[in-house]
Amino acid sequence: MRVIGIDPGLALMGFGVVESDGYRFKVLDYGVLETPAHTKDGDRLLCLFKGLNELFEKYQPDAVSVEELFFNKNVKTAIAVGQARGVALLAVTNFGIPLFEYTPLQAKQAVVGYGRAEKQQIQHMVKTILNLKEIPKPDDAADALAIAITHINNAGMIRKTR
Amino acid sequence: MRVIGIDPGLALMGFGVVESDGYRFKVLDYGVLETPAHTKDGDRLLCLFKGLNELFEKYQPDAVSVEELFFNKNVKTAIAVGQARGVALLAVTNFGIPLFEYTPLQAKQAVVGYGRAEKQQIQHMVKTILNLKEIPKPDDAADALAIAITHINNAGMIRKTR
Repeated sequence: MRVIGIDPGLALMGFGVVESDGYRFKVLDYGVLETPAHTKDGDRLLCLFKGLNELFEKYQPDAVSVEELFFNKNVKTAIAVGQARGVALLAVTNFGIPLFEYTPLQAKQAVVGYGRAEKQQIQHMVKTILNLKEIPKPDDAADALAIAITHINNAGMIRKTR
Repeated sequence: MRVIGIDPGLALMGFGVVESDGYRFKVLDYGVLETPAHTKDGDRLLCLFKGLNELFEKYQPDAVSVEELFFNKNVKTAIAVGQARGVALLAVTNFGIPLFEYTPLQAKQAVVGYGRAEKQQIQHMVKTILNLKEIPKPDDAADALAIAITHINNAGMIRKTR
């Protein structure tokens, strides 16, 4: 099973491509799609849409797993990130890939086994699970890898209980 | 000049197609793109993306004018509408149409001449400016027509001052 995890954002959209046979995990790629500041929102969103399509084309994932937004403060930021997230959901659906969404809480439980885990604990576990030499940078890429792991673990749990 | 105005939303996305020679206004079409409830966000966003592309294909507008979101309360709603708005901005840019954004305040000033106008005043002025027999329904369609008028008036002002 090959999964692309996405951590949505307008300036930086994190992605992580993870493959698993249900026991071992293998990272194929990770990083961020970056859009230039001081350009129009429409152009930035188109840049993200094209970048995602290139990733889907290249890696042909079985599923894409996207982090759900959770904001309690800045509504303006929520709208900007919401716009980028909408484009990500569209790109996945338009490409015909099964789409899954997980909250930060679900990601913490799946990766660390503890819903109140700190950011550093998650990053450390991502490094360990994926057998990486270093913690993946930037944070957006590490978050995207965590969301990919979350889906693989949940899909595995579903398989086991059947 | 042919302008499509858009009032973004996930369940209902209002649109209005307005043509003007700088003096008179003519409505070519208006209405809402409606997406089914209880379906996945990705499917609803794809439905909006396709609907917008059909409108752009049919009417070949010179510009598209989109309302800026203004929320002071529900962050969850802001994210959902933000996602739909992101897809609208993407669709316009992807189609290669010049994109303009106006705040509700700018729309009120352009249509009623008064930034604190009530919803009913705006709808009444939309009906009058566009020489319609009735106030356009639903509200999302009336708002979209107002945003189209806003761009035409602003574009006209730019022309006059040159």
